[in-house]
Amino acid sequence: MDYRSAFKASVARVRAEGRYRVFANLRRVKGQFPRARLRTDEGDTRDVVVWCSNDYLGMGQSPCVTGAMKQAIEDVGAGAGGTRNISGTTHYHVELEASLADLHHKESALLFTSGYIANQATLATLGKILPGLIIFSDELNHASMIEGVKGAKCEKHVWRHNDVAHLEELLKAAPLDAPKLIALESVYSMDGDIGPLEAVCDLADKYNALTYLDEVHAVGLYGLRGAGIAERDGLLDRFDIIEGTLGKAFGVMGGYIAADEVIVDAIRSWAPGFIFTTSLAPALAAGARASVEYLKSAYHLREQHQERAATLKARFQEAGIPVLESVTHIVPVHVGDPVLCKRMTDELLDVHGIYVQPINYPTVPKGTERMRLTPTPMHDDAMMDELLDAVKTVYAKHVGLKVA
Amino acid sequence: MDYRSAFKASVARVRAEGRYRVFANLRRVKGQFPRARLRTDEGDTRDVVVWCSNDYLGMGQSPCVTGAMKQAIEDVGAGAGGTRNISGTTHYHVELEASLADLHHKESALLFTSGYIANQATLATLGKILPGLIIFSDELNHASMIEGVKGAKCEKHVWRHNDVAHLEELLKAAPLDAPKLIALESVYSMDGDIGPLEAVCDLADKYNALTYLDEVHAVGLYGLRGAGIAERDGLLDRFDIIEGTLGKAFGVMGGYIAADEVIVDAIRSWAPGFIFTTSLAPALAAGARASVEYLKSAYHLREQHQERAATLKARFQEAGIPVLESVTHIVPVHVGDPVLCKRMTDELLDVHGIYVQPINYPTVPKGTERMRLTPTPMHDDAMMDELLDAVKTVYAKHVGLKVA
Repeated sequence: MDYRSAFKASVARVRAEGRYRVFANLRRVKGQFPRARLRTDEGDTRDVVVWCSNDYLGMGQSPCVTGAMKQAIEDVGAGAGGTRNISGTTHYHVELEASLADLHHKESALLFTSGYIANQATLATLGKILPGLIIFSDELNHASMIEGVKGAKCEKHVWRHNDVAHLEELLKAAPLDAPKLIALESVYSMDGDIGPLEAVCDLADKYNALTYLDEVHAVGLYGLRGAGIAERDGLLDRFDIIEGTLGKAFGVMGGYIAADEVIVDAIRSWAPGFIFTTSLAPALAAGARASVEYLKSAYHLREQHQERAATLKARFQEAGIPVLESVTHIVPVHVGDPVLCKRMTDELLDVHGIYVQPINYPTVPKGTERMRLTPTPMHDDAMMDELLDAVKTVYAKHVGLKVA
Repeated sequence: MDYRSAFKASVARVRAEGRYRVFANLRRVKGQFPRARLRTDEGDTRDVVVWCSNDYLGMGQSPCVTGAMKQAIEDVGAGAGGTRNISGTTHYHVELEASLADLHHKESALLFTSGYIANQATLATLGKILPGLIIFSDELNHASMIEGVKGAKCEKHVWRHNDVAHLEELLKAAPLDAPKLIALESVYSMDGDIGPLEAVCDLADKYNALTYLDEVHAVGLYGLRGAGIAERDGLLDRFDIIEGTLGKAFGVMGGYIAADEVIVDAIRSWAPGFIFTTSLAPALAAGARASVEYLKSAYHLREQHQERAATLKARFQEAGIPVLESVTHIVPVHVGDPVLCKRMTDELLDVHGIYVQPINYPTVPKGTERMRLTPTPMHDDAMMDELLDAVKTVYAKHVGLKVA
C-alpha cells in the first residue's frame, strides 16, 4: 500500500474536475469593508472589493460588536478553558443563550462552536433520543444536516427540494405512530430560494411530526427583529427546533439551536458534539450577543440589505447576465462549468479587483457551477457600477453572451 | 407519539443516574486566574479557585495572547465572514498554519473550528480517501475520534487500552495489503496516562500502517518547544498525522492537524467538516499564533507546570487521598459513584470555595467517577494547602477514608 500515491490520487481527482481550491488570502481592514486587501502568492498586496462574504450586514466590523469582544478579552481573557460542563460556562454564554431564546420566542437556546456542529450534533442526537425516529430531509439540505441525519442512524427519507406533495407522500407511507422529524432550511444559500415553511408546518400537524428549521442564512436578515423567515411569516411557534449561526449576518462565529427547554435539555445532555468540546471563546459570545441585540431593532439595515440585492438582480437582468431566480439577498449567476467558473472569477480578481469566489461541486451539483454574489448595505452604487462593467466584460469574453 | 414525554424521559434517565449536569456560571477575572467569580442561581457572586481548567498554563490571560486578539479585532473586525474557500481565509489563518506545521516539524497544518471537529472530520475523511481502510483505535480514544472512526464507515478494530500485544494481534490478522491506520492519544485526559507511542510506531512500520496521534492534552506542555509527547520522545517524524487543539494549553479555541502536505491537501479538499463551515475568527487565529510562538521558547513554564502536578500528587498520596496513578499533569482522584462525586464537589464549592467539576459518565466509564484536578503554574502553595485541607475534610466526611 503506497499511501502517498493514494493521497495524491485523491487530490488529482479534484484537480481533474477543475475544482481544486486555492484559498484567497485576504486581509480585511476594519471600517473599510467590503474593501479588503488580497495577498498574492508572490507576497504583493492589492485592493479588492469583496462580493462574496456571508457577513451580510457588515456586522463583523460594527463597533458595537468589536467593542464588546475587546472588552470581554480585557475582562476575562482569551479562551473558555474547558467544556461547558468543566469550567467553560461563563455569564457571556448564559446571556447569549437568553438573547437567542428571546429572539426566536423559545424557552431555551444552546450554543455550539459552529452552525455545522449545531446541525450535525442535534440531528444525530435526535435519532438517539427518539427510538424509531424517521427523518424527512429536503434533498438540498446543507452538508452539516446530511451528516447529522446520517449520524442519527435511523430511517430517513429525502424529499424532492421544496416539493410538499412529495413530502406528504412520504409522510403518509410511514407508520402513523412512529416519531417523525421534518428537516429543512428557510433560505437555501446557493440558490437563494425559500423553503415552503407554512405548508411543512401544516403537514407536521397533520402527521404529528417534529419540525427542524435551519435559518443560518436568514437570522439577522428577515423578520421584524431578525429572527428569520419563520418570524417574517409568523411561524416562529410552529417550529420545534430552529437552528442558526453567529458567523454570518451576526458577523462573529458559532452556532446554536433554540427550542422548548425540554428539547434543549435533552440535546445538552446527550450530544457528543456539544458535550466533548471546548466552549465558545467568551469574547465570541460577548460579540455575538451585542450583534443579536443590536439587530433586533435594526430593521432599517434589513431594508437596505434587501434593496441592494434587488437592485443588483435587476441590473444583472437588464444587462443580460444569467442571474438565477432568487427571492432573497443571494444573487447567484449561472456559469455551468467548474473550469470556466474559476477562470472567470480569476479574471474578475486579477483584472478588475473584484473578489467573487467560484462555487463548484461539492458545494453545488455538477453542471450548476456559478458565481454567488452577496451585496451588503455597504456595497454602494459606484461599486455596483464597477461590478456590472467587469462582469459584462468577463461574460462577453468567455461565454459570448449578448450583453447590453 | 408524545414528543414532550420522550424528551423528558431522556433527561430523566440522565437524572436517575445522578449525572444530570448543571453548568457552573463562571466569570474569570483576567490576571487573577485561577481565581474566578461564580454566579449562583440566586444571582449572588462568590470568589472561587478553579482547579479544573484545561487552560493548563494560564495562557488565556497572557497579555501576548489577549493583546494579539484585541489588535486583530481592531485591524480586521470580528468574524471571518465565510468558509475558508469563500472569503474566510486571512493571513492570520495562513500564518498560524505555518506556525503549527513548524511546531510539529511537518510540511503543512490545517485549522478546524475545534479539536473535536478536527478529529471527527479527519478520521471520517480518511475512510473515504483510502478505500478499504482498516482503522485500529485505542479503546479509550476520545469521543471525537470515535465519531470520526464511525463516520469513516470502514472496517475497524478497537484495541485494548495501551495494549500493544493486542494491537499487533489485530494488525497481524488483517490483510497484508489493506491500507491501515492506527489511532491513539498521547495523553489520555481523564487518567493522565500516556500511550505507547514508540511501540505503536514500530508496529506501524512492521505492518505498513499510517499513524494518527491526538496530542490535544500535550501540545504546549511537553517537548522542548511544546509540540507534545511525540516531540519529547523524539518521534515527531514517525507520526503521519498529529492532531492538536488551540483551546487547552494554548488558551484560545480551535483545532488542527499537522502532516505531509499531500495528506493535508487531501483532507482540505474532501472533509465536509472543514469545507462547509465558517472559518475560525481571525482574532482567535491571531491569539493562538501568539501563544504557540510564545510557548515554543517557554520551557520554564512547562517545568513549573510539571512541578505543580508532581507536588499535588505527592501531597494527596501522603494524605491518603486516592489519587489515581498518572504520569502527567492531570491529577485524578477516585470517587466511584456519580451521586457522591457530585455531592463532594458541591461541598468543595459551597463550603470551601474550590471549584472542581465532578467527572461522571459518559466522560468516564461508570464506576470510575472521579474528581479531576489540573494544577497550573499559577496555583501557588497557599492554594494547594487550602485545597488539601478541603479535600481531606470532604473525603473524611463522605468516604470515611482514614486521611492523615
